Order: sequence, then C-alpha cells, then structure tokens
Amino acid sequence: MLCGQKLSPLSFLTASYTDSSDDETSPREKTQVNSKGSSDFCVKNVKQAEFGRREIEIAEQDMSALISLRKRAQGEKPLAGAKVVGCTHITAQTAVLIETLVALGAQCRWAACNIYSTQNEVAAALAETGVAVFAWKGESEDDFWWCIDRCVNTECWQANMILDDGGDLTHWVYKKYPSVFKKVRGIVEESVTGVHRLYQLSKAGKLCVPAMNVNDSVTKQKFDNLYCCRESILDGLKRTTDVMFGGKQVVVCGYGEVGKGCCTALKALGAIVCVTEIDPICALQACMDGFKVVKLNEVVRQVDMVITCTGNKNVVTREQLDRMKNGCIVCNMGHSNTEIDVASLRTPELTWERVRSQVDHVIWPDGKRVILLAEGRLLNLSCSTVPSFVLSITATTQALALIELYNAPDGRYRQDVYLLPKKMDEYVASLHLPNFDAHLTELSDEQAKYMGLNKNGPFKPNYYR
Amino acid sequence: MLCGQKLSPLSFLTASYTDSSDDETSPREKTQVNSKGSSDFCVKNVKQAEFGRREIEIAEQDMSALISLRKRAQGEKPLAGAKVVGCTHITAQTAVLIETLVALGAQCRWAACNIYSTQNEVAAALAETGVAVFAWKGESEDDFWWCIDRCVNTECWQANMILDDGGDLTHWVYKKYPSVFKKVRGIVEESVTGVHRLYQLSKAGKLCVPAMNVNDSVTKQKFDNLYCCRESILDGLKRTTDVMFGGKQVVVCGYGEVGKGCCTALKALGAIVCVTEIDPICALQACMDGFKVVKLNEVVRQVDMVITCTGNKNVVTREQLDRMKNGCIVCNMGHSNTEIDVASLRTPELTWERVRSQVDHVIWPDGKRVILLAEGRLLNLSCSTVPSFVLSITATTQALALIELYNAPDGRYRQDVYLLPKKMDEYVASLHLPNFDAHLTELSDEQAKYMGLNKNGPFKPNYYR
Amino acid sequence: MLCGQKLSPLSFLTASYTDSSDDETSPREKTQVNSKGSSDFCVKNVKQAEFGRREIEIAEQDMSALISLRKRAQGEKPLAGAKVVGCTHITAQTAVLIETLVALGAQCRWAACNIYSTQNEVAAALAETGVAVFAWKGESEDDFWWCIDRCVNTECWQANMILDDGGDLTHWVYKKYPSVFKKVRGIVEESVTGVHRLYQLSKAGKLCVPAMNVNDSVTKQKFDNLYCCRESILDGLKRTTDVMFGGKQVVVCGYGEVGKGCCTALKALGAIVCVTEIDPICALQACMDGFKVVKLNEVVRQVDMVITCTGNKNVVTREQLDRMKNGCIVCNMGHSNTEIDVASLRTPELTWERVRSQVDHVIWPDGKRVILLAEGRLLNLSCSTVPSFVLSITATTQALALIELYNAPDGRYRQDVYLLPKKMDEYVASLHLPNFDAHLTELSDEQAKYMGLNKNGPFKPNYYR
Amino acid sequence: MLCGQKLSPLSFLTASYTDSSDDETSPREKTQVNSKGSSDFCVKNVKQAEFGRREIEIAEQDMSALISLRKRAQGEKPLAGAKVVGCTHITAQTAVLIETLVALGAQCRWAACNIYSTQNEVAAALAETGVAVFAWKGESEDDFWWCIDRCVNTECWQANMILDDGGDLTHWVYKKYPSVFKKVRGIVEESVTGVHRLYQLSKAGKLCVPAMNVNDSVTKQKFDNLYCCRESILDGLKRTTDVMFGGKQVVVCGYGEVGKGCCTALKALGAIVCVTEIDPICALQACMDGFKVVKLNEVVRQVDMVITCTGNKNVVTREQLDRMKNGCIVCNMGHSNTEIDVASLRTPELTWERVRSQVDHVIWPDGKRVILLAEGRLLNLSCSTVPSFVLSITATTQALALIELYNAPDGRYRQDVYLLPKKMDEYVASLHLPNFDAHLTELSDEQAKYMGLNKNGPFKPNYYR
Repeated sequence: MLCGQKLSPLSFLTASYTDSSDDETSPREKTQVNSKGSSDFCVKNVKQAEFGRREIEIAEQDMSALISLRKRAQGEKPLAGAKVVGCTHITAQTAVLIETLVALGAQCRWAACNIYSTQNEVAAALAETGVAVFAWKGESEDDFWWCIDRCVNTECWQANMILDDGGDLTHWVYKKYPSVFKKVRGIVEESVTGVHRLYQLSKAGKLCVPAMNVNDSVTKQKFDNLYCCRESILDGLKRTTDVMFGGKQVVVCGYGEVGKGCCTALKALGAIVCVTEIDPICALQACMDGFKVVKLNEVVRQVDMVITCTGNKNVVTREQLDRMKNGCIVCNMGHSNTEIDVASLRTPELTWERVRSQVDHVIWPDGKRVILLAEGRLLNLSCSTVPSFVLSITATTQALALIELYNAPDGRYRQDVYLLPKKMDEYVASLHLPNFDAHLTELSDEQAKYMGLNKNGPFKPNYYR
Repeated sequence: MLCGQKLSPLSFLTASYTDSSDDETSPREKTQVNSKGSSDFCVKNVKQAEFGRREIEIAEQDMSALISLRKRAQGEKPLAGAKVVGCTHITAQTAVLIETLVALGAQCRWAACNIYSTQNEVAAALAETGVAVFAWKGESEDDFWWCIDRCVNTECWQANMILDDGGDLTHWVYKKYPSVFKKVRGIVEESVTGVHRLYQLSKAGKLCVPAMNVNDSVTKQKFDNLYCCRESILDGLKRTTDVMFGGKQVVVCGYGEVGKGCCTALKALGAIVCVTEIDPICALQACMDGFKVVKLNEVVRQVDMVITCTGNKNVVTREQLDRMKNGCIVCNMGHSNTEIDVASLRTPELTWERVRSQVDHVIWPDGKRVILLAEGRLLNLSCSTVPSFVLSITATTQALALIELYNAPDGRYRQDVYLLPKKMDEYVASLHLPNFDAHLTELSDEQAKYMGLNKNGPFKPNYYR
Repeated sequence: MLCGQKLSPLSFLTASYTDSSDDETSPREKTQVNSKGSSDFCVKNVKQAEFGRREIEIAEQDMSALISLRKRAQGEKPLAGAKVVGCTHITAQTAVLIETLVALGAQCRWAACNIYSTQNEVAAALAETGVAVFAWKGESEDDFWWCIDRCVNTECWQANMILDDGGDLTHWVYKKYPSVFKKVRGIVEESVTGVHRLYQLSKAGKLCVPAMNVNDSVTKQKFDNLYCCRESILDGLKRTTDVMFGGKQVVVCGYGEVGKGCCTALKALGAIVCVTEIDPICALQACMDGFKVVKLNEVVRQVDMVITCTGNKNVVTREQLDRMKNGCIVCNMGHSNTEIDVASLRTPELTWERVRSQVDHVIWPDGKRVILLAEGRLLNLSCSTVPSFVLSITATTQALALIELYNAPDGRYRQDVYLLPKKMDEYVASLHLPNFDAHLTELSDEQAKYMGLNKNGPFKPNYYR
Repeated sequence: MLCGQKLSPLSFLTASYTDSSDDETSPREKTQVNSKGSSDFCVKNVKQAEFGRREIEIAEQDMSALISLRKRAQGEKPLAGAKVVGCTHITAQTAVLIETLVALGAQCRWAACNIYSTQNEVAAALAETGVAVFAWKGESEDDFWWCIDRCVNTECWQANMILDDGGDLTHWVYKKYPSVFKKVRGIVEESVTGVHRLYQLSKAGKLCVPAMNVNDSVTKQKFDNLYCCRESILDGLKRTTDVMFGGKQVVVCGYGEVGKGCCTALKALGAIVCVTEIDPICALQACMDGFKVVKLNEVVRQVDMVITCTGNKNVVTREQLDRMKNGCIVCNMGHSNTEIDVASLRTPELTWERVRSQVDHVIWPDGKRVILLAEGRLLNLSCSTVPSFVLSITATTQALALIELYNAPDGRYRQDVYLLPKKMDEYVASLHLPNFDAHLTELSDEQAKYMGLNKNGPFKPNYYR
C-alpha cells in the first residue's frame, strides 16, 4: 500500500546526489559490467554504486529488525534454494530487504513496481553486489514490462517464489509463463491492489499457488495507518504549505485508523479538529476522543483545512469546494485518489496555478483560492517521507512470509490467500522492540497456564485485528 | 485556604443516604404492600420509593439513548409477551433498563447479582411501580439464592427470557428448573464470568437455548474498557488517596484496552508512565504511544504507583511488594482480583492499617508503608463511579439483545452463544450520538455502491472488534 | 456491574471520621488537660489526639520538602526565640507546618481562620504535643474571635511574628493590641484577601512592620493555579456529579492560569472545550492551544458544562442560565463567588432541589434542570481535595518567609509588603525536586560566567512571574 | 531573532523559481529601470517582479492582521511624512510590512540585514512598485555596507525613522551620519543582538533617540518561542532526517519557553522525553508537566536525540558526544550556536560526512555515527520554515511601534529603550484574532469597574511577560 512513498521525498531531499548529467541514453542500450564481471542487470549507471551503498547503510540503521533477522537466520539459511523474483519500489529500504533475502540463502532477480520511484544509485549498488536488478528512474511503459520480463524470462534460472507489490509481476508470470507460475511455491503480496487481484484469482479458481496477504497483517496495518499517518499528515502539510497548525480549524473526513492518526496529531499541535463519519461506532469513538462529529456541509464554509481519509469517492464535491473559504487547504490521506472530486475543478472558469511542486492554487473567478495538494492523490506518498522504521516492519513481514511459505510442510497452505499467522506477526513486532530498548515480560509457567496461553505466544486470537 | 476536605474521603465510600435507622429486621420477615396493593416483592423499605424515584430520574438524564429506544419502540411493544427474569446490580441505572423493558411490553421479575450493591431506595421505587423485585443491600448468601428463587419459582408466571449478569441466575434455572430452562427463548449475559460459563455449557452440549454474549459487543468493550477506565483510574485514585498525578512515576502492567485507557489519562495529567507487557504487538503499540516498556522488576523500586491491568495472576508478587518504596500505591484495574498477590501480604511481620474505607497501609517492619487499594479488587468498581452514560450503552445493548432473541425467526439462532450482530452494535452507537449532538453523514447511493455497503450499515465486518 | 457508588458522594463532604458522639458541650466550657499536664489550649476533645497524629503522619509522607527543611535547619534553630501567633486552617497539612516551626525553635499559638475547616483530631494532636491551639469545627462567630484573642492575649508571652491566612488575626492584633503589633518583626500572609488588606494598610501608612506576600510567590502561583486546578477540576466534577468527560461540550470562561489548567485537563480527557476571554493576548493563547474563543451567548444553549475562572462578577447571568439546556452543569473555579449570578436564581418560579451535598438542581417551570455546584462558590475548595504535595509548597514558602523576616538584618525590610526573594522561591522549588527524583544540572564556572549568573541562582529576574 | 529563517526554506522549497541563469554580473554594475522609469534601487533582476508579486500575494493571505491594520489606518495615514530607512530580511513577509508602511504614508528605503536571505524576486517586486530597495541574494561584505549606505546617503531625502533587525543599520547611521542620527524620531529594533547594542548605547549615554525593543514584546515572545518552536522542532527534524518520533527517547536541555514548546510537541507525537535544567522552578514545572528531570550524563548513552534549548554554551560536550549511541541525532533550538561544542568534533580521528544539506554524519573510529544538524546552528532557522502567521505578529508589532514613536507627543519617550506599551501588545493580538474566527468578550461597565480595568484594556499589568 505504501507505494511510491519514496518517490517524492527522495527527489525532494536528495535530488542533488542524483546524477544530473545529460546522459539520455536508455539503459537498455548501454552495456554495463559490474566489478565482478557480471552484466546480468540493467540500471542507469552502475558507477553510482558507491553513493547508493551509503544510502543503504543509512537505511540499515533504522531497519535493525531486518538486520537482526538476517543475523539470527544467517546460519540456517532458511531461503537456501529459493529463487525469488521480486517487483517493488527500488529504494534504500527495499535494498535492505533484498540483501537480507540473499543473506538468508535466496537468489534474487528484481524489477521496479513503479516507473518513477527507483533510486538509480541504489539500483546500481544492488547490481554491483550481484543482484540481477532491472530498473531505473523514468522507465517507459514498455521499459517497465521489459524489465519484469527480464527478471522472469532467463535461462538456467526459474523462479520458485514471487514477492510482489501491486500484482503486475504476478499477473505477468500468470499470463506469460503459466508453467513457471504453477511451480511457484508461494506469492507474497503487499499492496491493497495486488491482494484484491489475488482474491479475485482465488475466487475464480485460478490461483494455483498459496499466497500471503502481507497488507492486512496486524503490525503493518497498525503502523502504516495509525502511527505512520500521525506523523506524515504534519510532515506533508508543512513541507507543501508551511502552514501553522495552532488554532487552525480542520475537518477530517473519516475516523478509521488513518483518520484517528491525523486527528491525534493535529489536535496535539493545537488545531481545532472536527470529524465526519458514516459509521456510528467510529462516530462515537470520535466523540469520546473529543472531536465534534459534523456533516461536511455544516462546517465547509469556515474550516481552514479539509483532509479526507475515508477510502470512499466524492467525499469532497465541487459544490463543497465552491463554498470553501479563501486559502482553504484540501488534501487526501485515504486509500485512493477518488475522495476529492478533482476532476470537477477542471472547468474553464477556474484557474489552476502551480505554486510549488505538489501544490496547486485553484482560483475562483472572485479571486478565492483553494490550495489543493498532490492533485488529490495521497498526501503522505506524495509530499512526505515514510520513516525507514515503518518500512522495516513491512519488509520484515515480507521476509518472514517468504520464509514461511518456502518452508511450510505440504498441506499447511493450499491454493488460497492467507494472512500471516498471528505468531509471526508477533515475531515481527518482537524484532522491532530492541529499537526502543523495550523489555518484554515473560509469562511464568503458572501464569501461562492460568491464561491458557503458550509462553511464547501467540497471545492474540487469530481474529485479532 | 483548604478546608478540611481530608475528612470526607474517610467516609464517602461506606456511608449512604440510605435510611440509617436501626431497623435490623430482615426484609424477608416483613410484610410490605405497595400503593397499588401488591406485595409481590421483597425490599428493605418500600416507603423509600420516592427517594429512589428521584435517583432514577437523575440517571435517566444521562441515559437518553435508552429513553429514546423506549420511545421509538413503545408503539410496537417488541417485548409484548416476554416474561423476563433478571439478575443484575440494582441501581438507578438498571432501574432505567428494567422500566424500559416494561415499557416495551415485558413483564419482569428481578433479583440482585451482588449482595452489597443494591440501592435500597431504587429497589423500593421499582417495587412501588409494580416490578417484582427481590433485593436489598446486605443480603446473606442464603438471602441471595432465596431472592433468585422467588423470581423464578412463582405460580402463573413462567419466565421465557433471562437477563443475567454473572451467570448465577442462569445456573439456578438450569439446575433447579430444567423444564423452565428448556422453554426459555433466549439468555442475555453481560459478564465475563457468565459468558465463560455459557461457553462451557455450550461446549458440553448442555446449552439448549440461544444466548447472547453482550460482554464482547464492540460498543461495550470499547466504552467499558478504554473510555471508562480512562476516567475511572483518575477518579478511583483521587477519591481514595487524594494523590497528585503531576510528576508521579507510574508503572501500568498490561497495555490492552484497559491499560491504554489508564496510561492515556495518567500521562495527560502529567504522570510519567511506563508499561509492562508480555505481548510484542501491544508492547510495540506502547512504544509508539510514548510509553517505555520495562519489566516490573526494573522499576519497582522507584515508582510511586503500580497499576495492574493484565487479567493475569500474581503480576505483582510479594517479592516486588517488598522492594517498593515507602508510600507506593498499588491497585488493580484488571479483570480479576488475582493480579496482586494480596494473600502474600497477610503475614505476621506486616501490619495492616485500614486508614480509610478501601485504603490499607501495609507496614513493613522498617516502617515502610505500601498503600493498597480495595485489597487488590477492581479499583473502578470499588472506589470510583461509572458514569450513567457508559451504563446506558450496556443497558441499551442488553435491551436490544433481548428484543433480537425474543423476536428472531426460528432458525436464526441455534443453541449456541452469539455475539450481537454488528448492525445492532451500530444501532446502539447511533442511539447515543444525540447525546453529543453528533451528526452522522449518510452515504450517497453512488458511494454505497462504490464501497459495497448498504447505506444503513452494517459498516464494519462482523470480525471487527 | 456497578454498585451503589452513587450513594457515597451524598455524604462524603459533610461527614467526618470525627467523633460523632452527641457531645454538644462547647469546648469553651470544658476543662481538658493533655498528657503533659498542660491545659493551655481549647479543642473539641484532646483524647482524639492519636487519630489526629496518624493523619499528620500520612500528610508528612507527601510533604517531604517541609520535613527536609525541618531536618536541614533543625541544628541551627533559625526560629529560636520566635514567638509565632498563627491563624490558618487547622488540618493535617498545617499541623506539619506548625510542628516544623516548633522544630526550628519557634513557640507557637494557633487559631483557625475558618469556623468549619478545623479537623478536630488534628487540633487534638497538636494540643497533646503542647501547641497552644484554640480551634474546633463549628465555631460560632463569637468563638472565632475568642480563639484568636486567646492566642494573642496571654501573660508572659508576646508574639513577635504573625502567620496569617485571610488577615483576621493581623487585623485583630493591629486593632486590639497596637503595642504588640508595633513590636512584631514580621507578618507572613498567604491569602489574596489578606494581602489586599496589607497593601491597603501600607498605602494608608499604617503598616508599621514588614510583611511578606506569600500569595504571589512564583511557586505558589504556578502550582496552586495551573497544576492544582488541572487536577481539581476533574476531581470536583466527578465527586459531585459522576459526569463522564468524554465528548462533553464545555465552555471555560477565562483563560488565565486557572482556566488554562481546567482546559488542559478537560481536553485531555476528551471534552470539547471552548473559551471566553476579554483579553486579546489570552485569547490568542487559547487559539494557539486549540480552543475556540467564543462569546458565552453564542454557545450557552448547547454546552454541557459552564466553568467560570475569571475573577470577575456576573460572568454567567440569569439570562444565560435561562438559556442553558437541561442537565447543564454550572460551577466556579475563579477567585470569588461572584462569577455566577446565583442570587438571580433565588426567584419564586424556580425550584431548588438539593440532590447531594454541594449539588443543587435548579428547576425551571418547564422542568429544565441546571445543576449548580457549591452554590457558585469555589469548586476546588468545596468539592475536591488539594493534594498534600501542593500544600507542602505553600507551607514551605510560609516557613521560609518567617525565617527570612525573623533573621533579616536591620534595614533589609522596611515597613512594606514584600514578595519572597526569587532565590527563596527557587529554594522552595529545589526542596520539592527530590519528590520526583529530579536531578538538577549545575552550571560550570564557565557557563555561569557566560550567562552572567551565580551558580546557585537566582536564575530568574525578580520580575519573573 | 528570527533571522535567516527564510533562507533555507526558500532555497529548499522554491529553489526552482529562482532565476537559475548564469548571470554573474554584480547588480551594482547593472543599470535597471522599473516600469515607472525609476532606477533608484539595486536588485538582482527587476524583471522577476511578477514572480515576486505572487509570492507577496500568497504571504498576504496569512498576514491578514497586517492587511487589516493597513486598511484601518489607510485613511488617516499615520505615517504621513515618515521617512523610514529599514534593514531586515527581504522576503515576501517583510515586503508585506514595507508595503503596509507605504500604504500608511511612509516613504521607505530598504536594505537586507543578511547577505544570503534576500528573495531576489521579492526585492524585484518591491523595486518595481517604487520602493528604493538595495539587496540581493549573495551580497559580499562590501556589498552589504554599500547597500545600507545607499539607503541612508541620498540627496533630498533624510530618514527620520529607523527600522532595524540586528543593529547594523543603526550602527552605520550612528557612526557615519551622526547628524542624521540625532534627528531621527525613533528606532524600532527586533533582534536580541540589536536590542543588546541599543541598551549598551543607552547605558553609555550615547543613545540620543528613543528606541522601541520589539523583541521582548509579549506577543512576539510567546509566539516565536513557545508556539513556533512547538511546530518547527518537528518540521526541522523531519525535513532533515525523516526520523519517526513515536517511541524515540529524547533529552531536551532547558525547559524555558523554547524547551516547553519542543517537549510538548515531541511528547504529543509519542516520543519519550526527559529534560535537563539548572533552575529549580523550571525543573519543577517539567516534573509537573510529566517530564523526568535528569542530568545529561545520566541519559546520554541511551537517547536517540539530544536537543539543546538553554541559551548557554557547551551544554553538550565532546565527552558526551563520545558517549552517544550510534545514530543519535544532535541539534540546537536555543538562542546561539554555542550550545553544542561542535568545534570539539573537528579532530582528525573523526570523519565528517555531509549526507544531505544541513545534515552531517560525524563518524567515530569504531563506525559510530552521530547525526549533527545544521552544524549546531539554530535548527528552526536552518531547516524549517516559519509560518507567515508568526511573522505577521512581528511585522504588525514593528509597524505599530513605528506609528507610536512617530506620533508620540513630545516627552512621552525620552532617549531610552522602551518596551511596547501593553495596550499595543494587546492590539497586535486583537488584530490576529479574526484569523481564528475568535470572538472576544467585552466587559460590561459594571464588570470593568469591579475589576478596576478600562473596558478597552490594557488588561495585563505592564510587568506581565
């Protein structure tokens, strides 16, 4: 789900280190060789490897859980023999994941799941160490599929595991290489979209391999939504608008985990926040948490910011945009770019003025300006960064899911989509506790018995969410 | 500046506005008649009815959801024909529930589920209006079962619904009146214990009627635990110890919903709070919420308060009590009185000094005092109040569960224990929104379709918790 | 589930652990002798001393700063020769102060500053140890002055220091014993009223002794107002009304220190708080802190609670009370009982119903009830407690002020009203830090020089407030 | 004080719109003419005026108080005849101030107070409308004084008011044009440094004109320190390090207004914060606010971030830097760049690696990295932005101070440094309330009398701070 989040921040903060040369040659047309003599990769410029290595090392500092998993499992090499074909953003953080998989015994071939999000230097660093990576920033549509194909379609190497983010790789293998697909031992999928596609495949009876839905694992959900959004809403708004939060009147549409995170942060910094909800249980929670529950129409004239977190469509309509006051900021933290009816703003009487990257002033005939961020796309993916720590949780979960599927005894998983077993969710959490110097208490035998629990967990029922 | 406020807490918990006359006659030996000529009840003194009526009226003000349910359903009388035998605390708040059931068409007979908790005046008020109530404050064990029996064992009236809190009534009917039990259309149970007993009965194949587990309904869980404890931890500590929260070092054992509520409140008032956990997921949440996760042994020497919220046993041991500093406050907010090993403190070398109601100083030979609240029983039940508003949520859920079971078409419920359908949970929540002047947003047809939801809910999947 | 807690508040404020015997004899008519044979005191019953001693010991636990001052100065006896006549509330906390003064070398005679606030057992304990205390709960106006007079008018003992709370003692000495007054070396006054009277005396040129205004010392102001009110607003509301804070709409009138404390606490527990202000600077602070600034008339119809903290009069008028909704709670946290126009409610068409101690329902002809607390007097003095810790700060400040005035070289203080030197304020604060295990950093010589400060303070300019 | 804050953010966020041409010609060597034919200015490129105008318009949106002052006073032109020479940062926000002064009747000549902070486009826009502005980004030291001189040393125009930020302009006029200096009616100074220099001049008896110390006005202090830092600490840390706040252990050195702001924000986002203090009063406040007070040495090994806010020097020493853990972030929010002993890190055994703008990794021989931000300079000036709203408060205060000094009757101000009268402070606050739709309550005559206040203020005593 947290796709492309590294796209903007990287170009934003670290644009400088990106090779700014005028080299317009397509990587596909270049021949490059890494220091070990291999040319089984395709990146922008393998010579940028050193720079990319440093970025990877910095990322490792905040991904100590993954490093710790790497160390714990390095001896037994639980992925020995695994041939993983992957398709994710290619960033310093995913590089840490890929190199962990390698350390655990896997062979990897990798493509990018997004044509813009690749950090060229990181791709170079991976290529330099011998990972068969096919990705660069600014791929064409054709390049995109070419890269994926180069990962799959190779002699002497046949993937037996898939790690996907978005479902494009899975789809490509399913369609183009059905014989490979059938022999895959498992698919690990991270994104909402990809998971949706897997469930559809499963429903249609066409999913012939077990798949793990990493997107809905507890740790990922809790962290990506509540905690991560709690920080990224502030970050995204500041970087784009420099707005002061104190005293601002804000309406947050939707009080799910994302909405809760946004509301908490904004209230903590002195904003006066109200909430819209369709669901009475969430509405009652909002009340008890100290947020007035209103209809958008009741407050739209007076608020300074409108933030959508519903996952629904047309939550903010043109009519409501018409009624906003001058200077109102409108942005989206939900799961899709449909929440704000941006299309309705593309009419002749309104002027659009791009005042900064990701910031448009939409100007009404009377001079009123509405400040639209990221054209209604996800603010946190477009305008803020996601801390490596959060990405570590996802990456660790992905690694464990691969290990689980690869090593599961026959029969444990059928041709279906699975959630990560609670115990592994708990293991992911426990790997991250040392980051906080957190000390877990252990049940005594007597206590475990009293609670009817195993001393090592799982502590939560499987339905816990 | 400060005037003698210290006096009050000494007596506030035991004293009562209750008639303090020396009337020691057991209610069972008295003959009382209400103003309508009925004597089918047994209370302390039916003449206290007026006082009790006022308490009921005050409670009604904060239970407007129940009153509103009463009004909405009064016309159709969904409980017409229902003969409800009930066993709950008998307080102003449950009186509002009982009178709501009556208004919806039910006939009720009622006993107390606790020998101490009956508000005599409220029982009198119920008796005066014609409810067959059998309860008084200070029943003996024998009285307790006698009262329950008088509710069930009556000519010309046979219960067809059971509303229970703790499972004693259910057990009594099951054991003593199996023929009645078999004909009951449904059981509504509120307590953890009672629900546990029902599941055991069900497992054993002996539950021959459908039962509704109200304890685990979403609204009850969220409100009774998180929100209610958030307030009652402060209230309970203040009323018993007048402690200042600012700057106090506190360790909260357990970071479930109850622990979360306690931590939030204490932190908000300036306490420095750390947490113990056995479950890595909860531990990671504690970290992200800003609480240091420690083992109790690491901090037990330095903290000013220890609060248990684990549901486990011997979470605070004698060894740890030995190491606490002078003046440390120890109390329990969990689900049982086993969390603090209070028994271990009953040794000859320790002196117990009851300094106030519910407050014991346990004194070590060197003069060190540990302040133990409510002898390790639940602090919020013993030393604070629960707002009528929270009780309203439970009571409304109970009423709806009765209506659902009583009116469900054959086959909807089998001989099992059920959770309230999500839609009814949401209905309970929606009935409480007007209290907060909260305005729910309605899905448009287009939005409902996009989300794959019915416009009227349920909005949450059934597994939502 | 909840048991009868509703009972308690009804009695908790008036009741007392005090000997409830029917002894109606006025203490003035009794002859009592303590165990040392002295009868130079007048209390309710000296035999209650043991009970009082225990209360004093409990208070000492939270007043460790005072105890620590006692220990540090016990050797040098800085009050040797001081004859202190005092007039304060007589509670366990002030007993700790009095006994500290004695330990530091002073002789003390003491009366109560309020006819209701004396804890009889504590007075007994003081009398038992030899303090000449003249006070009991329920004095008549005549008793009140008689007690004060007995403190001053005694053979072989002439006061040379005055410790006052309210100015009544000072006034009595000034008027009745001008020759004593002239020889007093200093007056320490704690209350707003008493300080006001001193300034008037000073203005009129009639203050012939130096006086210390303890009321406006930094530590007292910050703690009594901001921090203490932050806790007592919640406590006072809970004990009187059991109200749930979550989701309640509250208007707080006045955003000074008291208002800030109330707003912080209520917001932290989930109330939705708005503020009224007359001062634009405070209003802007309220905005930045996340509170909507409104006029009372704009919100009075919809709020659940109105809390006054302005120090002004008629902030809540009859007209506004007329417009409040049913169940609205009205109370006062400000400096006077004038803020709510309570007198305007004493009209024939309104019914007053005393539902609990300190709680009146004022009922309009249409049945609407407004819940008035403490008849508009200070909620925190009437309905909550003040933690011993806060009282410790005041008491320590009083003790230091006495020491300073008693030992000051001639010429340091003239016949005027003084604030405590900043350095002593800081000393009071430092004595309280061990309570929190707080570790102060010391300036290096180099740093002190860089900052232009003495390493031992004062760190704040004298005008700091 | 808020010096240079626009420097980085502008280059950071809006670098793109800055003319990137290779025009290396010094502006002093170019001849430019604005559209009205004037060439009495010197800027980078007057043709960038249009772009700068848009930036000014955007800034105006958040500076409505200044605009509102402009409108209210435009009729009476209180600055008619005023000849203001100014020296400040030249940004969109100061442009709004300058144009306000012009609208109120003043003639202005302006230079930059910092060689890097000028927004060339904004300077162009000012030049285009006829303001005699002499400033560009990247001036040399010589350019700097040349620009200032061009503002003062002009025929047919003699300054009678000075608006300064830093004291350089004042010093120049004092030294080079003593005859002009003597005839000036008033100086308005904003910065700590400039105010310090004025007080020195005054002490030395050489200040022959009244000066207004805007830096210490209440509104500026409260907003620049507490509220502004509350937001900028988060912003500065995120933009430089993308760090996640949740669960991070942070030590904040100093608990003055800046420290309070930092602590509040970090705690609100889930960091675990402790505090160091030298002053017991501030330390006690930290305790009551829920922060553990420690010595830096006690925690330096375990914390994830060290933030200095003391105004002192060598608060973080090399020894402490040696003991920090790998990945620890160190930064400064105080008033000087002396707090962290950065010089001590420039030794051969340590490697410095510049990983991003404003971010250095200092690497120990064992590989440990400490992340140093802005080389120990002010984080909020270097790495975050200051909202226009906060700048509006300062600018409005400056404008009012000019009006006050220019129009004050003879004798009101002598040759000294003054604080803004409280009433004007309150007026500045009141002008900003409409931004928040805040509604001020007015005292009734009766209430004003009761409080002894004028209905229109001032409401605070002059010593209020």
